[in-house]
Amino acid sequence: MQWAPSKSIMKKNYLFTPGPTPIPPDAYLAMAQPIDYHRSEESVALIKDILEKLKHVFQTENDVLFLTSSGTGAMEGAVANLLCRGDKVLVIRSGKFGERWAEICTVYGVNIIPIDVPYGDSVAPEAVEEKLTAHPDLTAVFATLCETSTGALHDIEAIAGITRDSPVLLVVDAVSALGADDLQMNSWGVDVVVSCSQKGLMTPPGLAFAALNSRAWDATERSDLPKYYLDFRKAHQRGLEGSVPYTPAVTLLAGLQIALSHICAEGIRNTFSRHARMASATRNAIKTIGLPLFATSPANTLTSIRLPEGIDGKTFVKMMRDKHGITYAGGQGELSGKIVRIAHLGWMNENDVIVAISAFERGLAEIGYDVQLGAGVAAAQEVFAK
Amino acid sequence: MQWAPSKSIMKKNYLFTPGPTPIPPDAYLAMAQPIDYHRSEESVALIKDILEKLKHVFQTENDVLFLTSSGTGAMEGAVANLLCRGDKVLVIRSGKFGERWAEICTVYGVNIIPIDVPYGDSVAPEAVEEKLTAHPDLTAVFATLCETSTGALHDIEAIAGITRDSPVLLVVDAVSALGADDLQMNSWGVDVVVSCSQKGLMTPPGLAFAALNSRAWDATERSDLPKYYLDFRKAHQRGLEGSVPYTPAVTLLAGLQIALSHICAEGIRNTFSRHARMASATRNAIKTIGLPLFATSPANTLTSIRLPEGIDGKTFVKMMRDKHGITYAGGQGELSGKIVRIAHLGWMNENDVIVAISAFERGLAEIGYDVQLGAGVAAAQEVFAK
Repeated sequence: MQWAPSKSIMKKNYLFTPGPTPIPPDAYLAMAQPIDYHRSEESVALIKDILEKLKHVFQTENDVLFLTSSGTGAMEGAVANLLCRGDKVLVIRSGKFGERWAEICTVYGVNIIPIDVPYGDSVAPEAVEEKLTAHPDLTAVFATLCETSTGALHDIEAIAGITRDSPVLLVVDAVSALGADDLQMNSWGVDVVVSCSQKGLMTPPGLAFAALNSRAWDATERSDLPKYYLDFRKAHQRGLEGSVPYTPAVTLLAGLQIALSHICAEGIRNTFSRHARMASATRNAIKTIGLPLFATSPANTLTSIRLPEGIDGKTFVKMMRDKHGITYAGGQGELSGKIVRIAHLGWMNENDVIVAISAFERGLAEIGYDVQLGAGVAAAQEVFAK
Repeated sequence: MQWAPSKSIMKKNYLFTPGPTPIPPDAYLAMAQPIDYHRSEESVALIKDILEKLKHVFQTENDVLFLTSSGTGAMEGAVANLLCRGDKVLVIRSGKFGERWAEICTVYGVNIIPIDVPYGDSVAPEAVEEKLTAHPDLTAVFATLCETSTGALHDIEAIAGITRDSPVLLVVDAVSALGADDLQMNSWGVDVVVSCSQKGLMTPPGLAFAALNSRAWDATERSDLPKYYLDFRKAHQRGLEGSVPYTPAVTLLAGLQIALSHICAEGIRNTFSRHARMASATRNAIKTIGLPLFATSPANTLTSIRLPEGIDGKTFVKMMRDKHGITYAGGQGELSGKIVRIAHLGWMNENDVIVAISAFERGLAEIGYDVQLGAGVAAAQEVFAK
């Protein structure tokens, strides 16, 4: 059995989903090296090196810790390690992943005050300020950098400007956006950032990360919620020694080290610029094609496109994959069938964007949508040519 | 940076730790295939195929679920999904991993009645029966098939004979032993079995498994402990559809499928026989060398050897790795420096055992222990020649 969905090697597979994202070939090779014991001196050096490189990506002086889990494991860890039963927290819900923060809090008996933002929109920082004023007993704000289900970017810098001089902790889900959209943990004053391996970090899924500042660490000392596998303090203390509380995904760590080396060599600010250019080119193309963007303030991570009436997104996504080897992501939940999401994330360059746009144009034409072939591609090229 | 600890390609690396264990080359190649979206039709088929093959390995008709985590994630999941706050449970503690059951239960406010067994020994099933009689309000027994920290095998068949006709659930940590030591979930009447990818299943760490019978699933409906990422019911329901609640470690799943195909082709009963022969040969060799086995009733998974006074296990293990590329595991916790653990687990055959024994003899000679070179190897060969 093969991973490749195509029967012909010439139908190459192109992955434009917002995670997993394509993996650089040298990272694959690192993961195919004979597996090693996670308590060896070499593994200690590897873990220390990764945790140091992650600081560059997180733009922080704070220590970063890792877990062997999906990003959701780090999200749950943030709730279970920072809060107490009966705490009241603000949760910004603007899609599936903001809703996930609320679900996790509820499971742990944490009371939530939601700010519900229409899908596709981004929260107004003033709304956060109002809620904090109205509820002076809030202990934390749970936010999302890029809401992957809609493609919307939230203004974390502005929200941090509100929380950082208050006793309220700001916890940010940067699962999909880390490495694509700017997040200056230290200089903005974000208290907790969580992310994972399979998006901007160009590594297969299976590793999650969290960075906490000193006041977030203080909160972990007060927290009375149960945690064992997701215990941040244990992961942090062991990590400082290049160790782990439990056997980690050692092959994924080997791949991550290579991927992080590439990001550090490019420089995280340049990584953001590359993603900004790819995002801008994609949006210029989509506008030229004549379709509306779904997010009012879109992230660099991915572009969500609202499909015209009469085009079923599920059918379109399936056809593109089955027939053309092009994997876009459809909509989730109530957006199912209504939007298509094209990621320009991780190990991607301008040519990948051209392939994504060109295939999109051809796919639209194929299902009978009136599209001028090449117009979107030209619009993308114009951005790149600047 | 390379995983290989040696500077010379000729100093090959041999991994004899009880996890991670060596990976078959075709599994590495599967994991190096271009990464795919976890919601594709191909991924659905992959997940369904894996969950079916796992039933053969678990020797059960029950559904198996998987998580992206270490084995400890599945252990915590068993506690969080089966129990209620204030429940009273029996925990068999005979080493680090039995102690882990107790630690997890305590974190969740579950009261434990321990049976403490000296390190290296296995629990007497009568002791379990006595405790169950003395505490009729116990809801579960937490046991370990192979206590990896000592190498001791516990008689799960006998314990299941006590619990299966009572309302008490039997939960077994088969993290290191699955695929090496027999565990007939269905015919013995074990309620819950948890395990992971990087031991007998010849796959890198990062995936954990759990199988529950119907009365264990009933218990999950009553459970009031918080869980989200480790929610067994969600993982189970999605798994039946070839899906997942959260992005799984897709490359590890690709490797696992290959590794499971090998085990299914060998047949799980033959897999046990191979491990039994390797274990028997190793023990015959160690006895011939003149060192005592640490476990009174050793598992097929690994052999723990008590080192003579004057030989520091930490120094010995480090020397074997640094100088000879041979990685054994040392002792953990209070056994640190006192024992050496040699695994014969997963993708291992008779020649691997010969290498492990031969290197062990030479290492002992090198640090001045009076050993007759070749005697242990010959003793191993004699077992294999039978």
